[in-house]
Amino acid sequence: MKTLSVDLGDRSYPIFIGEDLLGNPELVKPFVKSKQVLIVTNTTVAPLYLDTCKQGFAGFEVESVILPDGEEYKNLETLNLVFDTLIGKRFDRGCTLVALGGGVIGDMTGFAAAAFQRGVNFIQIPTTLLSQVDSSVGGKTGVNHPLGKNMIGAFHQPQCVIIDTKTLNTLDDRQLSAGLAEVIKYGLIGDYPFFEWLEENLDAIIARDLDVTAEAIERSCANKARIVALDEKESGMRALFNLGHTFGHAIEAGMGYGAWLHGEGVSAGTMQALYMSRLMGNINDTDFERSIAIFERAKLPVYPPNVTEMPNEKYLDLMAGDKKVQAGTIRLVLLKSIGEAYVTGDYPAELLEQTLNEWRK
Amino acid sequence: MKTLSVDLGDRSYPIFIGEDLLGNPELVKPFVKSKQVLIVTNTTVAPLYLDTCKQGFAGFEVESVILPDGEEYKNLETLNLVFDTLIGKRFDRGCTLVALGGGVIGDMTGFAAAAFQRGVNFIQIPTTLLSQVDSSVGGKTGVNHPLGKNMIGAFHQPQCVIIDTKTLNTLDDRQLSAGLAEVIKYGLIGDYPFFEWLEENLDAIIARDLDVTAEAIERSCANKARIVALDEKESGMRALFNLGHTFGHAIEAGMGYGAWLHGEGVSAGTMQALYMSRLMGNINDTDFERSIAIFERAKLPVYPPNVTEMPNEKYLDLMAGDKKVQAGTIRLVLLKSIGEAYVTGDYPAELLEQTLNEWRK
Repeated sequence: MKTLSVDLGDRSYPIFIGEDLLGNPELVKPFVKSKQVLIVTNTTVAPLYLDTCKQGFAGFEVESVILPDGEEYKNLETLNLVFDTLIGKRFDRGCTLVALGGGVIGDMTGFAAAAFQRGVNFIQIPTTLLSQVDSSVGGKTGVNHPLGKNMIGAFHQPQCVIIDTKTLNTLDDRQLSAGLAEVIKYGLIGDYPFFEWLEENLDAIIARDLDVTAEAIERSCANKARIVALDEKESGMRALFNLGHTFGHAIEAGMGYGAWLHGEGVSAGTMQALYMSRLMGNINDTDFERSIAIFERAKLPVYPPNVTEMPNEKYLDLMAGDKKVQAGTIRLVLLKSIGEAYVTGDYPAELLEQTLNEWRK
Repeated sequence: MKTLSVDLGDRSYPIFIGEDLLGNPELVKPFVKSKQVLIVTNTTVAPLYLDTCKQGFAGFEVESVILPDGEEYKNLETLNLVFDTLIGKRFDRGCTLVALGGGVIGDMTGFAAAAFQRGVNFIQIPTTLLSQVDSSVGGKTGVNHPLGKNMIGAFHQPQCVIIDTKTLNTLDDRQLSAGLAEVIKYGLIGDYPFFEWLEENLDAIIARDLDVTAEAIERSCANKARIVALDEKESGMRALFNLGHTFGHAIEAGMGYGAWLHGEGVSAGTMQALYMSRLMGNINDTDFERSIAIFERAKLPVYPPNVTEMPNEKYLDLMAGDKKVQAGTIRLVLLKSIGEAYVTGDYPAELLEQTLNEWRK
């Protein structure tokens, strides 16, 4: 087992990465305050891991709530099912919520923990690659609004993150690829050696080599933890994590939540951001081609939906609702080179239009 | 105009108290970050003060949303109307929400501000005595769940609180009395000189003397600000503010939100807490009689609903869901004497039963 730390003063917490961590009561015990534990999971994960997870909380009073699976259920209405259970079962301020599932479960459980009685503890047990390398670390929680992703939420840090790499054995190929989009992102925005390492090791991850995958997770989480520790509330460099996300969120919302996986939107969205970076005279052709190549090897889409499905007006309209918008300007994460990203609202509007026009299948 | 300060480090903020503060753009300007301002109010307050309030934000891009009036609408569903407006109008992270109304509007607007894009600024403009002396100060925000009051929320401090005492001219007598319950509370829990002052000045407040009322508001807010500064997240002495609230919240929920006003529940609930304090051998008969007298002079109920409407089992069931419950124990705020309160979970259960049985009309 490997242990990383997210350093946030008195809200610091560990990330445990390894095999067979799920179901180990010794691991979780120091992080549970009172007897009351509520495991929040979904209809896909529950049959696979809920029983084992419950064994991991042996000795506690464990309840569970099973939500429908999918980004389209990440809303206030579904969140209320968690509150119904918490209040119906008389959970108090000392309780602990456990998020057992992917990013949707983690975000919703975290927000439920942030808001229940104005804040209770929670533990992240991410079971998808995407949530293991990204959403389970850093305390961003929330739900979607029909007009925008993650519009309603809170910064609320977990007590610990438990990444059992064996849960990836039951993850389907499409979900594994979606997770790789965020892994590749860390290389692109600030870790060139990691990008090179991924070019060498991507096939092993696709082939489900758990040791290689564990290293990819560890290096991703280390990148995330380092920047979150410096900028918890995203007043500065944390925004770099959103490479491809302003385009990607527009794809997700525009195509209807659930049609494109988050990682798929990020992959195509990142290539749009890179195409625009190249138009801005930043990244060179080699870096651009290497980026296409690695996303394609990860079996991810590099092109956004076609212009009929996502016309430019729809893109711009959805992007204008992005959380990074400041005083009407759509702020974008762009790349100077692989390993060096920056945030800017200072670009010619026609280059954004040109990107939307030209980087299409 | 009087100015108090809530000292919370870099989240400190002022409370302005005076006449004709609503509609003064100079007062609010330093507290609004970007151009975008959303005023949240209700169907009762909007016809009276929305236009004047908008004048106070001259020079900004002001939108408004008018919610239905009443505690029964303080829920996630109504909250979503605020999010619909914010997202529909493309409000960004720099925006400011303004709560124009009583405690329900303040709590909901504050929670919307806490959760929108994971946190934006807000300003409290309380228009009822209750919200002026209590709920607008201290950063507790939230909505109700059918099974419990304020179960879903956040600690989120406003940028400033603007108390225009002239708004009390349009407050009906029942609402004014309800606010006095919280004013009297400050005397009971920790400010004996204020309690004595209230005994002398209560009639002037009831007669709508705005100077006397302003002093009552100032002394109440000073009490609140002092304790909030010491214990923002209610890990200790802030819980004293809940005198009468565990009983009172049970009355509010049990009778159906809106049937009993919050202040009415607090008044009857406080007398239950004081009756139990006397059974515990704490406050003496004189203090008990003085407390009854002052609530009655404030035209507030001193007895809870009768046993048919609120049987003991219903009380205990609702109280067991209170936020102060720890490991199954209902914690209560009790009184040693007027001006000295304490929180305890250590009392004979039969004294609570005896209180519910005996302190009835």
